[in-house]
Amino acid sequence: MSRPLFLVDALPTEDTYTLDGPEGHHAAAVQRLRAGEELTLGDGRGGTATAVVIAAGRDSLTVSITGRAYARPPDPRLVVVQALAKGDRGELAVQAMTEVGVDEIVPWAAARCVVQWRGDRGERARHRWVATAREAAKQSRRPWLPALGPAGSTRQVVDRVGAAAAGLVLDPESATRISTVDLPTTGEIVLVVGPEGGIAPAELAAFEAAGARPVRLGDTVLRTSTAGVAALAVLAARIGRW
Amino acid sequence: MSRPLFLVDALPTEDTYTLDGPEGHHAAAVQRLRAGEELTLGDGRGGTATAVVIAAGRDSLTVSITGRAYARPPDPRLVVVQALAKGDRGELAVQAMTEVGVDEIVPWAAARCVVQWRGDRGERARHRWVATAREAAKQSRRPWLPALGPAGSTRQVVDRVGAAAAGLVLDPESATRISTVDLPTTGEIVLVVGPEGGIAPAELAAFEAAGARPVRLGDTVLRTSTAGVAALAVLAARIGRW
Repeated sequence: MSRPLFLVDALPTEDTYTLDGPEGHHAAAVQRLRAGEELTLGDGRGGTATAVVIAAGRDSLTVSITGRAYARPPDPRLVVVQALAKGDRGELAVQAMTEVGVDEIVPWAAARCVVQWRGDRGERARHRWVATAREAAKQSRRPWLPALGPAGSTRQVVDRVGAAAAGLVLDPESATRISTVDLPTTGEIVLVVGPEGGIAPAELAAFEAAGARPVRLGDTVLRTSTAGVAALAVLAARIGRW
Repeated sequence: MSRPLFLVDALPTEDTYTLDGPEGHHAAAVQRLRAGEELTLGDGRGGTATAVVIAAGRDSLTVSITGRAYARPPDPRLVVVQALAKGDRGELAVQAMTEVGVDEIVPWAAARCVVQWRGDRGERARHRWVATAREAAKQSRRPWLPALGPAGSTRQVVDRVGAAAAGLVLDPESATRISTVDLPTTGEIVLVVGPEGGIAPAELAAFEAAGARPVRLGDTVLRTSTAGVAALAVLAARIGRW
């Protein structure tokens, strides 16, 4: 398997670096990296540095930087508008979508969402999504962390879809297959994944008025936590990323 | 959303039918279907009957059959050899793969699996996979239940791969992309998804000797519970099923 990835605020500019804080603890005390082992430091914004451990402390590592690389921003960008989901379904969706390479997740407070993100509880729920995306990005060795903002209203996500190079709305009733719809070669592809109860007719109409196309994934009904990752996999293959 | 699906041992041949047992309980007491509502009965082997509720009891429904349909067996068939996974990762994989349309799941006791299915505990673990596939098939309104046998040894799954029209092994080190590999138009496509610790070199060599091709999914590292569903989505789109 490839070298483990640890996230840093900024890539080290010196040749020697001390990885401390929570990431240092994780590397030294949990993963128990030792002198001579290799790792990657990433800033989550495309920058990565390969490094080798010089000395391992209790909760930190001293490493020697052996190389630096800067990944180009992905283009087209894959953005998913993901309806809030109950239980751990939202986090499972964020985790799997991050692994398969989503570039941005826009949480969506859709009309039929059973949960809404309000007040402190909402803030905690959002932080769980952010933390999940961060862990999944590390686990999958991604040089880019997915962007993940606050929950948007239907009006806000409709505007976002309207401004994209392409908007796609997963809709089991659509006759258009996601494997055949035209895709742009640059800009943002925004995919809308509705809640368990489905996208309300007025919401679907608003997305269509903003230029989005309803598309379907096969003939079966997918849970919201499966639909996004399955659709992203098809899109990643179709735009040549996979 | 489409009509709820309930599984029966055999499609009713009469025009009136009583749905009882666990499925009747689920329909009458949990989903609370009432007279006039529509549902689907499925035998899990391609046969479905549409029906309308005539009378709802406490734990059963009397329904009138309004139509029957028999789906053709899917071809090519999508078979996944899924390494055993710890915690609920195996069940999550089975759930999501069933939703996206896997036709058969072969549990695989790979060398690097942290868990093995032995004795009563193993039998219980297998039953959880079977129950998960059944629930996911109902939830996603699939006319076919995925086949799901006992855990196979590496020798057994290598033989299975060797007999397939195409064998693909997910391997992050492969230079061949799953979106470009040649696929057959008929017969079985068997996809091998390794354990969290990766497929052992001797296992990979055995699959290759049996004619399988290593393929990769993008540049990131996917968990075993995400890899199968993402790969299946790409394959479903490529064989024209999606």
